[in-house]
Amino acid sequence: MKEAVIGIDIGGTFTKYGIVDREGNCLAESFTNTATHDNFDDYLRDLLGAIEKSMQFLKGQIEIRGVGIGAPNGNYYKGTIENAVNLNWRGVIPVAEKIARYYPGLTISLTNDANAAAIGEMVFGGAKDMKDFIVITLGTGLGSGIVVGGTLVYGQDGFAGELGHVIVQPDGRDCGCGRKGCLEAYASATGIRRTVYWLLAERMIDSELRGMSFNELTAKMISEAALRGDKIALEAFDRTGWILGSKLADTVAHTSPEAIFLLGGLANSRELIINPTKKYMEENLLPIYCNKVKILLSSLPDMNAGVLGAGALAWNELNRKK
Amino acid sequence: MKEAVIGIDIGGTFTKYGIVDREGNCLAESFTNTATHDNFDDYLRDLLGAIEKSMQFLKGQIEIRGVGIGAPNGNYYKGTIENAVNLNWRGVIPVAEKIARYYPGLTISLTNDANAAAIGEMVFGGAKDMKDFIVITLGTGLGSGIVVGGTLVYGQDGFAGELGHVIVQPDGRDCGCGRKGCLEAYASATGIRRTVYWLLAERMIDSELRGMSFNELTAKMISEAALRGDKIALEAFDRTGWILGSKLADTVAHTSPEAIFLLGGLANSRELIINPTKKYMEENLLPIYCNKVKILLSSLPDMNAGVLGAGALAWNELNRKK
Repeated sequence: MKEAVIGIDIGGTFTKYGIVDREGNCLAESFTNTATHDNFDDYLRDLLGAIEKSMQFLKGQIEIRGVGIGAPNGNYYKGTIENAVNLNWRGVIPVAEKIARYYPGLTISLTNDANAAAIGEMVFGGAKDMKDFIVITLGTGLGSGIVVGGTLVYGQDGFAGELGHVIVQPDGRDCGCGRKGCLEAYASATGIRRTVYWLLAERMIDSELRGMSFNELTAKMISEAALRGDKIALEAFDRTGWILGSKLADTVAHTSPEAIFLLGGLANSRELIINPTKKYMEENLLPIYCNKVKILLSSLPDMNAGVLGAGALAWNELNRKK
Repeated sequence: MKEAVIGIDIGGTFTKYGIVDREGNCLAESFTNTATHDNFDDYLRDLLGAIEKSMQFLKGQIEIRGVGIGAPNGNYYKGTIENAVNLNWRGVIPVAEKIARYYPGLTISLTNDANAAAIGEMVFGGAKDMKDFIVITLGTGLGSGIVVGGTLVYGQDGFAGELGHVIVQPDGRDCGCGRKGCLEAYASATGIRRTVYWLLAERMIDSELRGMSFNELTAKMISEAALRGDKIALEAFDRTGWILGSKLADTVAHTSPEAIFLLGGLANSRELIINPTKKYMEENLLPIYCNKVKILLSSLPDMNAGVLGAGALAWNELNRKK
């Protein structure tokens, strides 16, 4: 029997899940709705039912060893989701404890989605041989997972690694966290859309993006416009890389990582975001760190990086217990 | 025979040293000149000679188990001092290797002075029961040692934890590192002097500090003036705490520490610097971290914190080897 774990990636709209073996292969994967459930217990019953169904064709071939969960505001120490603004469930949800009732005896571990991505990178991805690195997810917001000496940094409370909320600009752009000027309001798939709109207001040059409403505009469209030479789109990437790169220089002064991996919607723009980020990071680094820190694309497939990350978390816990 | 280690704290002007037992008592301590030696080998011979002399009265009573060294630009992985701007010795000095020739068989360990202070806080000071904390030294510059999960963060290259060089103000004050706008140009014993001078230029109110040249002025004088109600001195502390506190809020978003300890010249101003730092840190924290992070004075005696830190480093290495 092949050993495997269940990886669950809880997002605001969908929950993705998969059966992940020790080598990082997804033996089965699918998704359910998150947003349609106002009650967590109902959601969990439906989710675990769907997972059981997806696993049926593997019956007798695999032995499930553990469950890993990546979720917004996931607390590794407590196994809880705490006051996540983009989920329907208020307060503190004891997710790991509730899942453990369905799977008695299994190791259940939970952390936030970006931390899970970092563990995914370490266990299955480009950071296999690294001890010190950071993963930055550039989606609707900016998430981060920091690894120091081969171990994910959780901090005193399980909530370390919120680089999306370092301050870039005092009294700057409104942020979803209720404050102003946070990094994720500038450097994320949403942030670059805001930057395009700001540039359309500031500049008088032509741009194909002038015909697009804010709601229609996606990071992918900005990327495609930039590849066609659109000056507003190109400047938006440059500014985004400038803000991200100069802030990452400060982050390097904290943990001196070997590499910083980019993942998620905006990272799919590849060189368009990597190049200015690298350039401005180098310009802002303390000389002692110059030319030492790689900016890389995550080697996890964007499609199921969250599921692989959650699976990697489960494997990581099992390996630690040995 | 009592077990002890040698703790050596190499500064730009003086080198302090002491014989430190397992409980953090200094059984003997003294200092030599650093700046008078242009040749490292001569310096080391004189230093180790002086240490031997200081230990003579302990002969037969102690057994030396290891040597710990704190030094500017000290590299823990390599045991080297690398291109330290305020030392006379250029390039890369293999300090641990050279000391090992005098003490064959002993464990020799080296790190930078702020990292040594953090280990001192963990082994002998106020962080004995903490796993996640940060030590900030506010002297001529701003040094930092970051502890995550009970282990000091060294990073890929041994140089992690340079919070003095995160950027506060793009194109801001000149910094000793050759760049502009670094935190230590504002938040340090030197930084607050610069802030006083800036305020004396900006404001028209009276101040006892108007009679003082920049060279005469010390952080202690500013502290004493503030205690007498001098408005410029009080505003200087408020501004320093504002800059330090708001940057520490960003640092908390990296490693989520239980406490941040302040140490060194400017920390001797106690509440004058602690209170505004705490206030502005809280104002700038992501809500999830609010009211969780203590700002504390180091409980190591300022006089020999460096020696105790270096001694703690040596004990820490010996404990790890067990």
